[in-house]
Amino acid sequence: MEYSEVTFRSDMTIELIDSMGDDRSILRAMMVSTRKDRDVDAYGEDDVFGKLNFLMKNRHGTPFEHATMTFRAEVPIFVMREWHRHRIGVSYNEMSGRYTQLPPTYYIPGPDRNLVQVGKPGHYTFVPGDPETYEWLRDDMEMEAVHNYRRYEDRLAKGIAKEVARMSLGINIYTAQYFTCNPRSLMAYLSLRTKAEPFWQEWSAPDEFRSSPQQIERVFSQNPGGSMFPSFPMREIEMASEMMEDQFAAFFPHTHASFCENGRVCP
Amino acid sequence: MEYSEVTFRSDMTIELIDSMGDDRSILRAMMVSTRKDRDVDAYGEDDVFGKLNFLMKNRHGTPFEHATMTFRAEVPIFVMREWHRHRIGVSYNEMSGRYTQLPPTYYIPGPDRNLVQVGKPGHYTFVPGDPETYEWLRDDMEMEAVHNYRRYEDRLAKGIAKEVARMSLGINIYTAQYFTCNPRSLMAYLSLRTKAEPFWQEWSAPDEFRSSPQQIERVFSQNPGGSMFPSFPMREIEMASEMMEDQFAAFFPHTHASFCENGRVCP
Amino acid sequence: MEYSEVTFRSDMTIELIDSMGDDRSILRAMMVSTRKDRDVDAYGEDDVFGKLNFLMKNRHGTPFEHATMTFRAEVPIFVMREWHRHRIGVSYNEMSGRYTQLPPTYYIPGPDRNLVQVGKPGHYTFVPGDPETYEWLRDDMEMEAVHNYRRYEDRLAKGIAKEVARMSLGINIYTAQYFTCNPRSLMAYLSLRTKAEPFWQEWSAPDEFRSSPQQIERVFSQNPGGSMFPSFPMREIEMASEMMEDQFAAFFPHTHASFCENGRVCP
Amino acid sequence: MEYSEVTFRSDMTIELIDSMGDDRSILRAMMVSTRKDRDVDAYGEDDVFGKLNFLMKNRHGTPFEHATMTFRAEVPIFVMREWHRHRIGVSYNEMSGRYTQLPPTYYIPGPDRNLVQVGKPGHYTFVPGDPETYEWLRDDMEMEAVHNYRRYEDRLAKGIAKEVARMSLGINIYTAQYFTCNPRSLMAYLSLRTKAEPFWQEWSAPDEFRSSPQQIERVFSQNPGGSMFPSFPMREIEMASEMMEDQFAAFFPHTHASFCENGRVCP
Repeated sequence: MEYSEVTFRSDMTIELIDSMGDDRSILRAMMVSTRKDRDVDAYGEDDVFGKLNFLMKNRHGTPFEHATMTFRAEVPIFVMREWHRHRIGVSYNEMSGRYTQLPPTYYIPGPDRNLVQVGKPGHYTFVPGDPETYEWLRDDMEMEAVHNYRRYEDRLAKGIAKEVARMSLGINIYTAQYFTCNPRSLMAYLSLRTKAEPFWQEWSAPDEFRSSPQQIERVFSQNPGGSMFPSFPMREIEMASEMMEDQFAAFFPHTHASFCENGRVCP
Repeated sequence: MEYSEVTFRSDMTIELIDSMGDDRSILRAMMVSTRKDRDVDAYGEDDVFGKLNFLMKNRHGTPFEHATMTFRAEVPIFVMREWHRHRIGVSYNEMSGRYTQLPPTYYIPGPDRNLVQVGKPGHYTFVPGDPETYEWLRDDMEMEAVHNYRRYEDRLAKGIAKEVARMSLGINIYTAQYFTCNPRSLMAYLSLRTKAEPFWQEWSAPDEFRSSPQQIERVFSQNPGGSMFPSFPMREIEMASEMMEDQFAAFFPHTHASFCENGRVCP
Repeated sequence: MEYSEVTFRSDMTIELIDSMGDDRSILRAMMVSTRKDRDVDAYGEDDVFGKLNFLMKNRHGTPFEHATMTFRAEVPIFVMREWHRHRIGVSYNEMSGRYTQLPPTYYIPGPDRNLVQVGKPGHYTFVPGDPETYEWLRDDMEMEAVHNYRRYEDRLAKGIAKEVARMSLGINIYTAQYFTCNPRSLMAYLSLRTKAEPFWQEWSAPDEFRSSPQQIERVFSQNPGGSMFPSFPMREIEMASEMMEDQFAAFFPHTHASFCENGRVCP
Repeated sequence: MEYSEVTFRSDMTIELIDSMGDDRSILRAMMVSTRKDRDVDAYGEDDVFGKLNFLMKNRHGTPFEHATMTFRAEVPIFVMREWHRHRIGVSYNEMSGRYTQLPPTYYIPGPDRNLVQVGKPGHYTFVPGDPETYEWLRDDMEMEAVHNYRRYEDRLAKGIAKEVARMSLGINIYTAQYFTCNPRSLMAYLSLRTKAEPFWQEWSAPDEFRSSPQQIERVFSQNPGGSMFPSFPMREIEMASEMMEDQFAAFFPHTHASFCENGRVCP
């Protein structure tokens, strides 16, 4: 029997499939409360940022639900498992191991992935391992993946149903999904699935929309990473999250800037 | 003191503000399960209807969540009260009687609104009243509305807060909202908020996509109104719902046709 | 025709119908993450508070969903309208003006209800009116309610359907509902529907479970009312909310104390 | 290095941790609509079934949300993956492979598990394999599991973080969770995650509450398995679901009987 060639990846794929709306869509939904939703097109950019920032700071969240983004994601199963714990304002359709043969692609940590865990539960941090450990782990995971996929193909070749044959696949095999969310549910996701340290600076508001230095100082002094409620996400889901945040920042720049300025608290 | 002139309406306003996706967006999300989402653009129309119909008939609902519609609605408070009981896959922002003076527009039933209720709880039907009763009711409601709004303006003129002054406004005063939903949450809404009798015929699938005469016969024989689980909505929320259904049918024609062909059961 | 006597109230009714679980239910759900859920019964009270406080401070919210409270509430329609905007983790069934005649009970603000609104949108505060204004308003609302209910009964007496006859009832008529929630969805509700000023002090943790004076000082110095994200709820919904908070504090004392200690941010 | 002994299971564990309410809790929430919720204690059993059956048949779903069940479940990861796709009215907390070492227990199909898949996508059925195939598969999966867990322990022994070491664990390793739901969300789950054929007969209503023979005949003639919208769940999630259905039937007997009588359509 000829086995498929197993391929390895250390990255995630996020592709924006479709989107609806922009910063002003959120503002229109907000302004219906005072019967001024028809005026939003005439607002200047400063006003758009200012009003969105008012919503963000005071956690008036519902207007942020009137826009949408659909992503196509390719991630390993152990990332999808965390992703699917999000239930509100999110929609999923995923590749099915019952209906199709999963392709022979497995995740292997890249050399820059911290391997060693330090600290006590709830306060873990991660540090790199030594290069020998990394190489050993990489080889070990590659061999196991090859072995794992061959078992899968052997079973399929014997006529065993896909849903049974797949039962011992490793959780680092890749799967794919369509994911639809809105700015509010995406910010809830990002607040939990990014650590945010490297992002705050470059993603904060354009100069003309920035909060006062005092406000920025306040956020930073209290929250070194820029997050008022810091999270400690698994690096692999964070990699997918950062790519979604890039797209979010591109389509909803004022909303995203205000999210960062206010300590990355989902409104 | 000069009072505002009260105006009367017997209709609802539904305006499509924005939308994302079409029938093929739903199909793409579906086809990721068998890794064929990239092929959807090449499908013929028959195939699109056929696959959506498979989802609908078997109640595979999640793919219908990967598209969006935002509506602006103007309806009286007693309609909004029923609307807001829908919680899943829906987003709302409404005019606020705490932040703005509600405009002097009230709902009065039109002459074609059935006024008299026949039957027992859970099985009500409605029939027209005699013309004298209708005219009496119309005059009575108009007078009460004028009286009602003057009390409101008197209180505001005395400096009483909007949120207090509005406390005895009638539930037939108009309000407005932004409403965002997806095809699945909209079908759940429509299955409950339309009686569907007049719609099935004209909204069923184009000839080339229709189910077999046997299937149609089966739906109709069991469900005279075209609905497998008939609902008895209040006429006023149905009026708003029918306008949203028109927009839904225009943007998602195959999905809508399949919804009708399968007895208007939300997948 | 003899009309029903209209009665007036200035209060809300909240009745606990049923509940499931306590602080340890939340803890069990939490501790399954490290396979220690079977150990929870043996924990001391300090440990229970400490672990719940860890969840609260770090906004690990899901364990707070594994308990339930069902309330029966009697509130005017304008309070119910705000209440029903909460969609997640909440269940409602309400008295129906389509199926039953609403009883002749109307809300009238009590003499201690602030009547005058000061400040600009988003930053309103309320102050008392002078006694003459209050008395005028009370009389005005009482007269309008009597008038309002008589119009309703006149229409019913003419055979007009309940769902039509009720269309101009005032939003201050009382309605009733069953409301089921969990500690997490209730904290989300309370964080928005109470101002919290009078509560923090008396509801904070028992001495032996309190956070450090530094932590308390930090919350208070930044948030005079005890809330990290202060809300400005309408007083009438706050009245109902405070009664639910009393019940919540009684059944989940450590959870509630930790909620207060951490600035009333829903985890 | 001494490795842990790997154990194998072919079953699922479902344990009821706590519950709130019974059939009458649902009825009370229903009857508030006509102001008769205080009368429910005096209803006879026939009346309880009859009224719940009215709700079920007409898909008035919300009253079924005012009760709760919390389960503790032990299932393999591939079952949990399907389970967590349910988002509405459900709460989860699961054992964490980031915070604890997963125990060495793996799922192996039992000899009565159908192994071979027949039919086309969307219409699969499963039939037994021959005994040799089963034995080969069992041995193959056992060897792979032992290999799989040793790789895991080797990595942990080298100081690699749990969240990295676990990355190639098989999806048939067991995990555990707390799951909280209400009768409505549980019926939605059961309608999708059971095939229902063996259950309808024994679970249908007690004689005195049964629907007419015509109604039963109608359900069966159209739906051989007793389900109006048959599902084709993976057997392993169905095993867990059947145990939850047993508990549901014990605590909410009228609700469950009515669910079966009406074609297992979630209201």
